[in-house]
Amino acid sequence: IPLPRTTRCTCVIVSDKSVNPNSLEKLEMISLSQSCPRVKIIATMKKNKEKRCLNPESKIIKNILKALSKKIFKRS
Amino acid sequence: IPLPRTTRCTCVIVSDKSVNPNSLEKLEMISLSQSCPRVKIIATMKKNKEKRCLNPESKIIKNILKALSKKIFKRS
Repeated sequence: IPLPRTTRCTCVIVSDKSVNPNSLEKLEMISLSQSCPRVKIIATMKKNKEKRCLNPESKIIKNILKALSKKIFKRS
Repeated sequence: IPLPRTTRCTCVIVSDKSVNPNSLEKLEMISLSQSCPRVKIIATMKKNKEKRCLNPESKIIKNILKALSKKIFKRS
């Protein structure tokens, strides 16, 4: 659950749980920065605009990203 | 260049131009919605926080996403 900006990293707790790409309103990939030396992947769910920090180290999340980009780029 | 939210889609003009994944601060993938029937890919550049709408139909952008996810997931 992303914490307010006051903490160094907005994603302290990250989830390995699978997410259905169709249930995603938005996926943000935020690269490491001075204020937070970790890549952040934040999913915003369609259902209740809930934001979830996904674990960039997890194979499950890697596969979600693959599925999402396949869905997006299916015509190119 | 994303337009203000008042228009239906924030991304009216999309770019096919390649972007160096290392120059990206954030990449947002926003799925289609009632207000905008198109997938949007918005890159925020590190340098001047400039936002660029990338063309989800373009092979170049598809490759950028691949390169970015490789960079993110290199340890999993």
